[in-house]
Amino acid sequence: MSERIIIIGGGAAGPKTAAKLRRERPDFIIDLYTQEDIISYSACGLPYYIENIIQSSDSLIVRTPDDFRKQNINIHTKQKCIKIKTNEKKILIEDLNSNKQYEAEYDILVLATGAIPIIPEIKGINLKNIFTLRTIQDGINIKEKMLTSKKALLLGGGYISVETLEAFVHNGLKVTLIEKNSQILKMFDEDFAHRITDYIIGRNPGQVSILTGEEVIEFKGDENQEVKKVITSSGKEIETDFVVLGTGVRPNTDFLLDSEIKLGINNSIKVNSTMRSSKCGIYAAGDCCEKYNLVTNRYTWLPMGSTANKEGRCAAINIAGDSCNFDGILNSTITKYFDMTISIIGISYKEAKELGFQPEFAIVTKRDKAGYMPNPGTVTLKLIVDKNTRTILGVQGIGDGDVNRRINTVIPAILSKTKLETFMNLDLPYSPPYSPAIDPVLNAAQIIYQKLN
Amino acid sequence: MSERIIIIGGGAAGPKTAAKLRRERPDFIIDLYTQEDIISYSACGLPYYIENIIQSSDSLIVRTPDDFRKQNINIHTKQKCIKIKTNEKKILIEDLNSNKQYEAEYDILVLATGAIPIIPEIKGINLKNIFTLRTIQDGINIKEKMLTSKKALLLGGGYISVETLEAFVHNGLKVTLIEKNSQILKMFDEDFAHRITDYIIGRNPGQVSILTGEEVIEFKGDENQEVKKVITSSGKEIETDFVVLGTGVRPNTDFLLDSEIKLGINNSIKVNSTMRSSKCGIYAAGDCCEKYNLVTNRYTWLPMGSTANKEGRCAAINIAGDSCNFDGILNSTITKYFDMTISIIGISYKEAKELGFQPEFAIVTKRDKAGYMPNPGTVTLKLIVDKNTRTILGVQGIGDGDVNRRINTVIPAILSKTKLETFMNLDLPYSPPYSPAIDPVLNAAQIIYQKLN
Repeated sequence: MSERIIIIGGGAAGPKTAAKLRRERPDFIIDLYTQEDIISYSACGLPYYIENIIQSSDSLIVRTPDDFRKQNINIHTKQKCIKIKTNEKKILIEDLNSNKQYEAEYDILVLATGAIPIIPEIKGINLKNIFTLRTIQDGINIKEKMLTSKKALLLGGGYISVETLEAFVHNGLKVTLIEKNSQILKMFDEDFAHRITDYIIGRNPGQVSILTGEEVIEFKGDENQEVKKVITSSGKEIETDFVVLGTGVRPNTDFLLDSEIKLGINNSIKVNSTMRSSKCGIYAAGDCCEKYNLVTNRYTWLPMGSTANKEGRCAAINIAGDSCNFDGILNSTITKYFDMTISIIGISYKEAKELGFQPEFAIVTKRDKAGYMPNPGTVTLKLIVDKNTRTILGVQGIGDGDVNRRINTVIPAILSKTKLETFMNLDLPYSPPYSPAIDPVLNAAQIIYQKLN
Repeated sequence: MSERIIIIGGGAAGPKTAAKLRRERPDFIIDLYTQEDIISYSACGLPYYIENIIQSSDSLIVRTPDDFRKQNINIHTKQKCIKIKTNEKKILIEDLNSNKQYEAEYDILVLATGAIPIIPEIKGINLKNIFTLRTIQDGINIKEKMLTSKKALLLGGGYISVETLEAFVHNGLKVTLIEKNSQILKMFDEDFAHRITDYIIGRNPGQVSILTGEEVIEFKGDENQEVKKVITSSGKEIETDFVVLGTGVRPNTDFLLDSEIKLGINNSIKVNSTMRSSKCGIYAAGDCCEKYNLVTNRYTWLPMGSTANKEGRCAAINIAGDSCNFDGILNSTITKYFDMTISIIGISYKEAKELGFQPEFAIVTKRDKAGYMPNPGTVTLKLIVDKNTRTILGVQGIGDGDVNRRINTVIPAILSKTKLETFMNLDLPYSPPYSPAIDPVLNAAQIIYQKLN
């Protein structure tokens, strides 16, 4: 008899698992349930849709339910999993059209329910025009509101806020960003967060305000219950036409709280490197799962579309009967604000100190090609090395030059625990249009080497 | 007493050694001898000077003799080393201004004499307007001739010829490139060499001819002894206004042939990882040295400005009394032809076969950002893995997208012998403007993984 596979979740990991599993095992019966009405879309592209770099929200859809049905994968949209009954190998589902509940039986279950926005408990949070940005419908709503607005307020200073800020500034709005921590992008060291803030403020003078160390304590609305201003912890009153909450996300695992499935950090699902959960026959992949940080050797939680894809693929290979391991992540992230690339891999100097490493660092700012070539970009890198092991713990990079290339060069070296001396002499290909004779990332390593000797 | 350091050679490695050594040891007496009249210039930039992307040849000079003299480094231009007398710790020098010879004494000697063009023995090779491209004066001569010419002929199909070809095509010339091998860029696999050739031919239809498997057997000149046409091995007669020889270079070590200093491949100077030659007290660095290939674990010879800089730095640290190792290279090279980046690291599939590896490969052609983002570039990658060890042997990349980033991501993995399974799941930072959710270089690894399982 064919195995019956049920996948819950239609973002990145679920559809990836389904598609890969179908290629590996034409004989399996695959059913995918999602509470949304579309599946397989790129949430990471939403800020660029709002900015109007991408005109149609349909562009963000990788594959439609019909595409999957053609592959003999049964897609059930607007069907929400309420509960899993692990002993009976059944799930309880609510049809969001009819509100009726029913059960479905599985041999193997894959949990890929993703993450959901955290809604802060602030007075007035239920006013109109206070948005989260997670689904395509969220993006459509925000874009529509932006196009008739002059002022926006962003709550939270993470990546999504920076990307949404670009979208709003590009469309001529005046924007206030409020962050309760003392800096935006808290995974970066303070010096880099300040450089990024300075660039954001300086790029469009008068158009952007960034308030750090400040909290919103109340949203105030008009007679139509539409938000009109916010009151902050220091007593500021800031007018706005709408608000986007960038106050973080959490694993979408509430329906598992009373199950036998073990949860870890932030209530994310504990999985081993083969994507098996604590319960036999149940796998999990994507933003709902706990991650393992290969730099700190600790469990962590970081929702990323790229990781979700890899985990979905890995789960599918194991379900199909082959063997595949996904060992963990390096907390690699990247974004941009107009011409500035912003990226961090591994851990910051601050975090390294907190975790008990003995970090040393170097900061370099260099042209990204030979000095005599026209139109050079600039890259600023902060490389962090552990003095005891002389291995790389992390790198932060910003600039209008090819930052990403330098960052990517460090990643396998972090993973392999390459010694500083070896990394410093890495044979990177050289040609004047692509780099100085000694690449900036090697410069940074040379400077740390000098400091340590 | 202060150590007396003599450095021979003024290209990249010599000046680098001098500058680094001066920073480390203010007490040493440093003398640098070069047969040229300038030092410390970027030969790699010459094609871009000819193309007129760089207007002045002075831009290619990193530092002048006066800059060095201010650092208390004695620069002796137009002074050619004829012989070294290792037992007496002296070198014999000819003053190229007066043709007088004299000796200089050293405690430590650094050989950084670089490489010189190979001049093929072809009838008519001494005609006027047959150029090599190695020194700034060569670049000035070629640019001057190009600006009044309509047709050019390039002999040899290596990187310098491809770069010079771009320069000539950009300036409106009709150009014929003749290569005796069956493909240009012989370090690449045939399939990639053909893709590159097709791009070059197709980019400027009618302006470029590439003849492979063809040799020049005679240069014919006019009554002024200026070259006017070439005769090829298949009997073709090709008219041209001038010729550039891209027929390779060799280590500039003829003056060492009767010395006690051991020479290796192509008569390059044998050095250990501290840049010491076989003779105590004599170091060598840069293009005149043998290299160690960390992929093949064999000695090789590949002249590169980036390697010369690293070796010069390493030699200086060791001479100063500290310890530094330069373990070897990965044969990393890169160039471009207009919008196409062209790069290879490690070894090709063909070379892997020849060397007795059991190679497997994958070729991917992908957009270099998320599919829905505007203005995507394309990257085509060929990744080569050894079936026995499941480690990466090499990568070739071409395309108008960010090829270099993908190539650079592979380099530390080749060096560290990272397993395919680990590399395939590498945590590269993802954001739609920078890559698809699964980066093309990871796609290539996944495909090989599929093939091997």
